[in-house]
Amino acid sequence: MKKIINNPNDVVSDMVSGMIQAFPEKLEQIDGTMVIKRKELSSNKVGLVSGGGSGHEPAHAGYVGKGMLDAAVAGEVFTSPTPDQILAAIKAVDTGHGVLLIVKNYTGDVMNFDMASELAESEGIKVEQVIVNDDVAVEDSDFTTGRRGIAGTVFVHKIAGAMAETGATLNEVKEVAEKTITHVRSMGMALTPCTVPAAGKPSFQLEDNEMEIGIGIHGEAGIERKPITSAKNIANELTQKVLDDLQLQSGDEVAVMINGLGATPEMELFILQQHVNQLLKDNNLSVFRTYVGEFMTSLEMTGCSVTLLKVDNQLKSLLEAKSEATAFRV
Amino acid sequence: MKKIINNPNDVVSDMVSGMIQAFPEKLEQIDGTMVIKRKELSSNKVGLVSGGGSGHEPAHAGYVGKGMLDAAVAGEVFTSPTPDQILAAIKAVDTGHGVLLIVKNYTGDVMNFDMASELAESEGIKVEQVIVNDDVAVEDSDFTTGRRGIAGTVFVHKIAGAMAETGATLNEVKEVAEKTITHVRSMGMALTPCTVPAAGKPSFQLEDNEMEIGIGIHGEAGIERKPITSAKNIANELTQKVLDDLQLQSGDEVAVMINGLGATPEMELFILQQHVNQLLKDNNLSVFRTYVGEFMTSLEMTGCSVTLLKVDNQLKSLLEAKSEATAFRV
Repeated sequence: MKKIINNPNDVVSDMVSGMIQAFPEKLEQIDGTMVIKRKELSSNKVGLVSGGGSGHEPAHAGYVGKGMLDAAVAGEVFTSPTPDQILAAIKAVDTGHGVLLIVKNYTGDVMNFDMASELAESEGIKVEQVIVNDDVAVEDSDFTTGRRGIAGTVFVHKIAGAMAETGATLNEVKEVAEKTITHVRSMGMALTPCTVPAAGKPSFQLEDNEMEIGIGIHGEAGIERKPITSAKNIANELTQKVLDDLQLQSGDEVAVMINGLGATPEMELFILQQHVNQLLKDNNLSVFRTYVGEFMTSLEMTGCSVTLLKVDNQLKSLLEAKSEATAFRV
Repeated sequence: MKKIINNPNDVVSDMVSGMIQAFPEKLEQIDGTMVIKRKELSSNKVGLVSGGGSGHEPAHAGYVGKGMLDAAVAGEVFTSPTPDQILAAIKAVDTGHGVLLIVKNYTGDVMNFDMASELAESEGIKVEQVIVNDDVAVEDSDFTTGRRGIAGTVFVHKIAGAMAETGATLNEVKEVAEKTITHVRSMGMALTPCTVPAAGKPSFQLEDNEMEIGIGIHGEAGIERKPITSAKNIANELTQKVLDDLQLQSGDEVAVMINGLGATPEMELFILQQHVNQLLKDNNLSVFRTYVGEFMTSLEMTGCSVTLLKVDNQLKSLLEAKSEATAFRV
């Protein structure tokens, strides 16, 4: 295992310290937790909390900032944060207008966010949740009932965050988050695995000429292992599967996210992007905005995902609204 | 070789197409070249051109945009762009106020930018150049006379770009670029090599427990190969070497860039950052801003670099000025 770390058991606390020290004017850590919150909350708005296992950086702490999340809860690597930490985040960001939890669809996350939500409500805080399930690769998986939540989650953060900044009510923010979830779909693939620091060895193996289509962001099984093919074929396979599921009409407008899983050179993401773009054109779809980079990673996994979000005027205007999150500046 | 590409000989043209299609409202390609330029130039300002071999993305095209570069020239992977392409960039961005070339100190780049500069001057365009040489690891190297230019180049782009936007003259922009170069130093290390697509195999090898300190961004030899150590030791070794060279005084203020070389998880960059931060505190240095991410990469090399820039009020204000570059939003 070749990693720039200290004790493998301390990676999350070391990382959170580094984040706070990097952006001391924007972020702070809630004492005794792995919760990163905005240093100065906007008043008069719904609070937004997300989080999940670590190892997906910049998700989720990179999306904390004015216009996106108010707090992110960092679990151990690829492990859901505990309910008490999620509760601490909820309490820290509630300004009396209620709190929306944005949860990726993994059994552990869903259970722990739900438990935290109940605890918060018993303390008189109004809490709502949305569950993101954008990954079209597989129904159910090792860690999930139903589809998994992956990179499309970042669009939910952005859109719900912008809506909350307008002073919308908890129900209104929840409604636009659910609308986003309804219209966003993703699919990924990997060329190489990653190593959880505390485990010390890769969680799976791929042959030298092999890729896995539809793999999850924790290395969960995808659809198929097969020989590596061209960027064009990879782009077409991922994008077509997303298009099949989204059921878009000719003339529809989409936002596109080309996401690197951690170790993929940006060069390759842009090569992929040109083929995704071409396939969208061939389907008479219009591209509103394209986002290329690392948004939802799997440590040093090599691979990518393609996310499409069908947009209307409301979603477009919320995507374009100002964001001061450190990993998503608009 | 596991890469998301098509023909290995087409990676640069495929990438440039993908970039233009991703940001069609901001960027355009000069026909028949690998030059990416701002779609709409600011008038009444000095033009800024940079570039170099590809494989360092987001450098340099990610820094094209209002407030930073006007054009970037993409050579083949790890290969200097040719003088005719650099000339095309110069001509495209000159609005009559002259053009500044920002060049990393590699023999090929220096020679080709210099030749392009002479060609442009013979066509009546006023051109000046600055050479960035921030890498303190080695004096001279396989491809360089004097120190190499690495991640510190991004600070030169940002500061010169902001200065040009103020309407400053060519000499004034050159002067602040040279001031930045005088005050910026970097040093890097790698855990694993990278593979140039057309070569098909890694350009060097490191043992399973080995790292190389002071390696260049093309895999050029560094100072020392030795067993991997902790993030704390790596941070201290890189930062101390930079501090020794910069000769800062107690109370000085610095901007910090923690740069990933391509395949390093963001988690590890933040872990490194906390130790860099601590060492700066121990030296009574004050941190103005910290930038953590991938700014100057080496394809899928695993490793990092640490850059320090000594700042004063002028440099701070130029660092904080608005930038619309796709990879460096302020």
